[in-house]
Amino acid sequence: MVLPDGNKHYHRLKIGVMGSASGPQISDPIARAKATTLGTEIGRRGHIFINGACPGLPNDALLAAQAAGGFTVGISPAFSEYQHVHEYLSPHDHDFLVYTGLGFMERDIINIRSADGVVIVGGGIGTLNEFTIAYDEGRPIGIVTNSGGISNSIPHIVEELCKRELPPNIVFDDDPAVLLDKLETTIRAFPLPLVKDARVTKHGIAG
Amino acid sequence: MVLPDGNKHYHRLKIGVMGSASGPQISDPIARAKATTLGTEIGRRGHIFINGACPGLPNDALLAAQAAGGFTVGISPAFSEYQHVHEYLSPHDHDFLVYTGLGFMERDIINIRSADGVVIVGGGIGTLNEFTIAYDEGRPIGIVTNSGGISNSIPHIVEELCKRELPPNIVFDDDPAVLLDKLETTIRAFPLPLVKDARVTKHGIAG
Amino acid sequence: MVLPDGNKHYHRLKIGVMGSASGPQISDPIARAKATTLGTEIGRRGHIFINGACPGLPNDALLAAQAAGGFTVGISPAFSEYQHVHEYLSPHDHDFLVYTGLGFMERDIINIRSADGVVIVGGGIGTLNEFTIAYDEGRPIGIVTNSGGISNSIPHIVEELCKRELPPNIVFDDDPAVLLDKLETTIRAFPLPLVKDARVTKHGIAG
Amino acid sequence: MVLPDGNKHYHRLKIGVMGSASGPQISDPIARAKATTLGTEIGRRGHIFINGACPGLPNDALLAAQAAGGFTVGISPAFSEYQHVHEYLSPHDHDFLVYTGLGFMERDIINIRSADGVVIVGGGIGTLNEFTIAYDEGRPIGIVTNSGGISNSIPHIVEELCKRELPPNIVFDDDPAVLLDKLETTIRAFPLPLVKDARVTKHGIAG
Repeated sequence: MVLPDGNKHYHRLKIGVMGSASGPQISDPIARAKATTLGTEIGRRGHIFINGACPGLPNDALLAAQAAGGFTVGISPAFSEYQHVHEYLSPHDHDFLVYTGLGFMERDIINIRSADGVVIVGGGIGTLNEFTIAYDEGRPIGIVTNSGGISNSIPHIVEELCKRELPPNIVFDDDPAVLLDKLETTIRAFPLPLVKDARVTKHGIAG
Repeated sequence: MVLPDGNKHYHRLKIGVMGSASGPQISDPIARAKATTLGTEIGRRGHIFINGACPGLPNDALLAAQAAGGFTVGISPAFSEYQHVHEYLSPHDHDFLVYTGLGFMERDIINIRSADGVVIVGGGIGTLNEFTIAYDEGRPIGIVTNSGGISNSIPHIVEELCKRELPPNIVFDDDPAVLLDKLETTIRAFPLPLVKDARVTKHGIAG
Repeated sequence: MVLPDGNKHYHRLKIGVMGSASGPQISDPIARAKATTLGTEIGRRGHIFINGACPGLPNDALLAAQAAGGFTVGISPAFSEYQHVHEYLSPHDHDFLVYTGLGFMERDIINIRSADGVVIVGGGIGTLNEFTIAYDEGRPIGIVTNSGGISNSIPHIVEELCKRELPPNIVFDDDPAVLLDKLETTIRAFPLPLVKDARVTKHGIAG
Repeated sequence: MVLPDGNKHYHRLKIGVMGSASGPQISDPIARAKATTLGTEIGRRGHIFINGACPGLPNDALLAAQAAGGFTVGISPAFSEYQHVHEYLSPHDHDFLVYTGLGFMERDIINIRSADGVVIVGGGIGTLNEFTIAYDEGRPIGIVTNSGGISNSIPHIVEELCKRELPPNIVFDDDPAVLLDKLETTIRAFPLPLVKDARVTKHGIAG
């Protein structure tokens, strides 16, 4: 990564995977196959894999990323491994787990900020929450289309329902490998905002 | 308020108002009139009025709530009044402002948790973020329909796009006074979850 | 309050009260009397009274502030009134309670940021946590000396143990009314930092 | 790690390093040598090394941990690498950096919760903040004594100033390798609380 002033420091790319942790999407074989391919690709490319340490599609991706040799990180809503396993009923196969103790909502924020770019596969209300955070904070987003849930509705939600612009750092593909190619390009082309809520001074406050 | 064990302690009802702080909705005279009526009703009924200390429709409601004699609270994303005014370009006429220093995303969470029930008027991506938080945390929600933005799309988003149930503690009306009647009834009928992420053990994890 | 650019907007002063919620200090009659006098003075002066909605000395101050007609705010670690009462075993007589759902540690941060200045009476480890937050974020602090716990040890902790400077916006007195006079003067004389972690660029990072 | 119900899942031990990021301690050659030895030992033992991505003694430890082959994690207060480098003036040589965007205070909380046990070397007000969090949340703590700052004052602060008990999961040694031996034993002997603020129901609320 080359910073604006020429500072050079190499970091492995960090890719977050969000998506359905429950609901009908997690038993859809097409969605599960896409999640698995996504994880495999992230691991194979040597990226750091991040998810919310939840079950469902992000966990399918996790297991595949690990099998492909990736380093995997989980951002848990729980305070402890015990609470993670016994109250949240969540997997914890990651190489590095942060037990944030923050619950789902703040966890979602840290989860997204931890990644250079996020990929959404399937997705219900919780994933929609994560999408709005990533959108509002200018994070590059890749959508695995045709993976159920909200995966084919993002332009509809942003443009038609919310009357907002679809920014150029959101990319779409129903092939996870092609999507990752696009997302990697996007992460290089559209640097993250330098400060939180940076857009305030540029575009006014989104509502 | 009467707690399950008979503990009695009176607190004024706290009503949060969320909605468009920017975008086309804030110059729609119908949406603005509804926001104003909403604020007047909240103030007139003696409830504590809460918003995110943002411009736009929630500010229209604030000014009306104050004019009607309500006690008003603002949960600001900024760290200081100076940052609130000069970077966030936000109003601060409230009786009590919390400068959280949290930025928009965590501010949204505290904003919603501060209220016994929330009302949404208009709304774009930021409001959708707040809706997903309120939904996921079981907070009673009133939607002012026909107020632009996402106000007529909530059932569509929840049921058709996210494939989730519309819970019974979400109520709709395009008359703010009637909506408040419904929301007050709902707040009494559907107590808040007792702990954060309570639904985890009841329904599995939403995704 | 007059902002740097001449913006004028009146807000009632917000005074936070921190201190022992457990331990030997809460049964010390001298500490309790000082806490009560402190609350009475805050209420009598028309300030907004804030505490962490905890038992002990801050609750003694709360009850006195209410009796003196003050508007009182509690920033609770709990997610709900039920959890506040039954798990945290905490009082909730305030006029306005925020159920943050954040637990003690993040609650402490919001608690301190909510106030224009904070007063410490007695105090153990939890209060020391709040002191370090207020110190690091440049908040005016008043110490009720001779109230037990850490109340007579702040200069010792800052200067001798931590090898840091005692900033001029920390004032001391064992008479709560005199202390409030000093704190009000200090709040006017030493405006809060404009942004979070502002000191980073001024003095380097404190450790 | 073996959970109470026999669940077995291996995770590498996560050791957090806190301490002076500024002030006189960071130029003390004895403190720096101890920080370096500490980092070397953490890396050599195959633990995951965590710090707050700050300068000073925790950075001395970081560089040594990396040189010894450890996997290193930084929990940054900044929102972006740019802000981390140019506003916080902080190092970022870690293998995995989380740009939390939370500022120092919330960052401190996540920093501590990320580790199975924390080690303190030197330390001023910021480190004292981290100590109070770790203490209040029942995290095992190792103190590198004779490393300046608060390193020789913890029992004095807890017992004499705060009038609280020194819990058995705090260990002391001025030899970092011996200290790590003790801390590893302590982490096994004193499991973390299962939920946040667990102590509330056990010992009452600390103040």
